[in-house]
Amino acid sequence: MLDYKLLAALAAVIEQGTFERAGQHLGLTQSAISQRVKLLESRLGCPVLKRTHPLSATDVGQRLMNHIQQVRLLEGNLIEHVPALGPIEQRLRIALNADSLATWWCPATASLATEPAGLIELVIEDQAIGLKRMQEGDVAACLCSSEMPIQGARSHFLGHMRYRALASPDYVNRYFPNGTTSEALSQAPALVFGPNDRLQHDYLASIGYHHTFPYHGCPTVEGYLRMALNGWGYGMIPEIQAPDALKEGRLVDIQPGTWLDVPLYWHHWRQSSRWIETFTQQLIKQAPQWLKP
Amino acid sequence: MLDYKLLAALAAVIEQGTFERAGQHLGLTQSAISQRVKLLESRLGCPVLKRTHPLSATDVGQRLMNHIQQVRLLEGNLIEHVPALGPIEQRLRIALNADSLATWWCPATASLATEPAGLIELVIEDQAIGLKRMQEGDVAACLCSSEMPIQGARSHFLGHMRYRALASPDYVNRYFPNGTTSEALSQAPALVFGPNDRLQHDYLASIGYHHTFPYHGCPTVEGYLRMALNGWGYGMIPEIQAPDALKEGRLVDIQPGTWLDVPLYWHHWRQSSRWIETFTQQLIKQAPQWLKP
Repeated sequence: MLDYKLLAALAAVIEQGTFERAGQHLGLTQSAISQRVKLLESRLGCPVLKRTHPLSATDVGQRLMNHIQQVRLLEGNLIEHVPALGPIEQRLRIALNADSLATWWCPATASLATEPAGLIELVIEDQAIGLKRMQEGDVAACLCSSEMPIQGARSHFLGHMRYRALASPDYVNRYFPNGTTSEALSQAPALVFGPNDRLQHDYLASIGYHHTFPYHGCPTVEGYLRMALNGWGYGMIPEIQAPDALKEGRLVDIQPGTWLDVPLYWHHWRQSSRWIETFTQQLIKQAPQWLKP
Repeated sequence: MLDYKLLAALAAVIEQGTFERAGQHLGLTQSAISQRVKLLESRLGCPVLKRTHPLSATDVGQRLMNHIQQVRLLEGNLIEHVPALGPIEQRLRIALNADSLATWWCPATASLATEPAGLIELVIEDQAIGLKRMQEGDVAACLCSSEMPIQGARSHFLGHMRYRALASPDYVNRYFPNGTTSEALSQAPALVFGPNDRLQHDYLASIGYHHTFPYHGCPTVEGYLRMALNGWGYGMIPEIQAPDALKEGRLVDIQPGTWLDVPLYWHHWRQSSRWIETFTQQLIKQAPQWLKP
């Protein structure tokens, strides 16, 4: 069998980001961690870590992480049947988009909070690329806008998240006095979440605008909403994130009657732990309360 | 003078993360960008980019970014006096902590939204390390818990952000029926924002607990608050982020009468643009409404 002491050191480095924190996490010295990773690399004959900051896995390292993730899930199942083995820390890593975490995720999974089967680690990733994190072995499950499951995994459709292009009424008067003309869209600053956020581009293309546009960058969901409310720009905001602001007219559509529906799929390894099964059942049951069919 | 065409290509790559996006940003092909960066490297005789994902700057590259940032600020000043030069896109990059952006930042700067002097790009960085981003030339200003300005910059004290260790009443009954004993703290899951988030450690040390503790990881402010409200764990939450939940008793202190006050300083280059000056005056004037002295 593989030497899991070495693999555990690698996983701790990737998950904690530095040798020092990996050592703290495993109760070892930094140099012990470093020796284990070096030993692993010399046995494999190739590097498993890129010496970036934070440290990241090479292609080979990612394959090992993927394997570690799946072994951990199997261990979780085993411990349920042979509790004497435990407690092994079972930490479930889940990638999801920031908008879901800010809206429906917590109420939908609330009933799992009171008796957690272990610890969870949420990882934020744009819905367009969460699946990549799973493929890299970095997470055990993810929410993603792509349906196609990766090899060895399953996907479940949960529903659509409806995004509307919203801004403050004051902003709309200032920049769109004659509606969303091409001239106005080329001048009016949008709000963009980050370099992977293409929602504004997709929306503008859907209403027939294909040119560049100015934008302010704001990489958190709550900051994004507040910047829209304060009149910095317009942006694609989940309808369910701002029901009060919409009802009270503090946010309005820049072009009423238009929106983008983004599908969300839940992906998990086929050989999953019971805990992921519980999450899966809960999400399938609860998501329709918040997401569009 | 330096060849700013090459420097602009480098800046676009660092700020956009890939050659492809840098090309889109500057209206050039990916290969033109790549050639410019290579030419810059061959003239300098050393690499300016680390080929990581996303791409990042080497030490030399960071010095160049720092220089570019300051030249941009000077250009902004110049254009105010010689508008015929414009429009040069003036994009102000500011690093701040997610908690500030989720609470007092937007109301404090709201009056600047209606007549922005350019586009802003907010970069989220833990208050303990925002200054590093400025030092690296990645941002023109930052909010940081450290007072000491870096060379060529100024700092202004804005106030303290008060963090309290909060959880749902149900969670407190479940894990702390006899108060925050060492035994209980070793079992009760905390919420931790990310690997740079030491607030929970600092708080626990301040109440005399120095051992390890279990935690769920949750890297967004609104998700963090929601997980606390739903009983997943306790965590250090800014008092001003949850006034209603505190008043209504949906969140309570795990040990009443204890908290952490984190100072916030505003740092900016001494040779700043007028726009940063406006931000600085606005923040100094408004912050006391939300922050403790």
